[in-house]
Amino acid sequence: MRRIKLTITYDGTAYHGWQIQPNADTVQERVERAVFMLTGERVTVVGSGRTDAGVHALAQTAHFDTDSNIPTRNFFTGLNNFLPLDVRVLAAEEVSGDFHARFSAKEKTYRYYLYESDVELPMLLNRAVAVKGNLDIEKMKEAAKVFIGKHDFRSFQSTGADTVTSVRTIKRLTVKRERGFVVISVTADGFLYNMVRKLVAALVAAGLGKTTVGDIKAKLALADKDAVREVFPAHGLYLVKVKY
Amino acid sequence: MRRIKLTITYDGTAYHGWQIQPNADTVQERVERAVFMLTGERVTVVGSGRTDAGVHALAQTAHFDTDSNIPTRNFFTGLNNFLPLDVRVLAAEEVSGDFHARFSAKEKTYRYYLYESDVELPMLLNRAVAVKGNLDIEKMKEAAKVFIGKHDFRSFQSTGADTVTSVRTIKRLTVKRERGFVVISVTADGFLYNMVRKLVAALVAAGLGKTTVGDIKAKLALADKDAVREVFPAHGLYLVKVKY
Repeated sequence: MRRIKLTITYDGTAYHGWQIQPNADTVQERVERAVFMLTGERVTVVGSGRTDAGVHALAQTAHFDTDSNIPTRNFFTGLNNFLPLDVRVLAAEEVSGDFHARFSAKEKTYRYYLYESDVELPMLLNRAVAVKGNLDIEKMKEAAKVFIGKHDFRSFQSTGADTVTSVRTIKRLTVKRERGFVVISVTADGFLYNMVRKLVAALVAAGLGKTTVGDIKAKLALADKDAVREVFPAHGLYLVKVKY
Repeated sequence: MRRIKLTITYDGTAYHGWQIQPNADTVQERVERAVFMLTGERVTVVGSGRTDAGVHALAQTAHFDTDSNIPTRNFFTGLNNFLPLDVRVLAAEEVSGDFHARFSAKEKTYRYYLYESDVELPMLLNRAVAVKGNLDIEKMKEAAKVFIGKHDFRSFQSTGADTVTSVRTIKRLTVKRERGFVVISVTADGFLYNMVRKLVAALVAAGLGKTTVGDIKAKLALADKDAVREVFPAHGLYLVKVKY
């Protein structure tokens, strides 16, 4: 038996997220179906974590076990033959049996793409989020500092998650103008449900002068799941890297 | 009666091009329908020219005449309320009665987006075209020089167009690497049916070492509508500017 690690990219628009669920089209199910078509085996493809409906991945990672004797490199082209065009395997490699796509992950990086425009541009539909008004990047950077480090992020979590603790460590959180976008990039040891999208909502509010660093600090300190309701849309969010 | 000039952007994926045709969804028809919803008038919205099915526009221009007393600026938000999200009006302005979106146009600029990848990336589906192999940009620039200037482009035209002459003047034609893409930008006094997509196919063939500058010169000189069959896909092509 071999364990195969996959690096997968997908446009999340058409899917109810990564994780398999009844009566919904998910990326995990599509990948498991492709493995079955290629190998004849019913396997579980374990992802590094869920991504929500509409969230994209430039590089999601996953693993599965196989008894097939297909050369590892053939999983790359082979699975792509059976996957829809909005899900692509970028790489396949054999890993040791103690590698686990979720539990071996040391940190994950997400990016969120915003652009300042009164009009939602057709070419950016489902790919980036339009903000009306001008964003003050310096204010957003100030606000970002509040979140960096080890905190109880309960205030910036939506209910419905199955995590034991809401303490997470944000290692890096940057805000910059890049190619006409305002890009928020965040690296942490893990993320709570909707955490990035709630952080982004807070940073944008700061950038528009609708909230202050003090407000954000106070809300984080509350560690109350009802403290923050505003959440930004899924389609601006990209899982860009999982580090092992 | 006033004449209104519109600047319109659209994702061409869902449409059979700009121009109205029976039993097909077109951008022109959508815009005319929006004008009707807003003003109650049945107008013809005259575009700067056709774009083919799947071709995008960052800035198509068009005009129509109206007897309504809606303030000009309100056509901007007003029409967007009645348009699908993949078609957006970016600007509306009143112009003189002798302005004509097609006949007053002095030059048009198209851009074509390529990227080098063995895998078609999900986030670029319908937005840019993947080329397998490495493109030699210097060779593409060499080949591009063949097309610059006034030529009979009959060899690089698909049949089915209704133009009197196939002579056009290419004012600028550039090839450059930009943000991970190879971008071909071409400005001319006008374009024949499929002309840009046939030029792109020739430039890519040159960049991959599959054709030579001499071959391309010979084909252009033939001025024969059957000389060049290869045409690149519509979805890499963007109308970016119409100059008056």
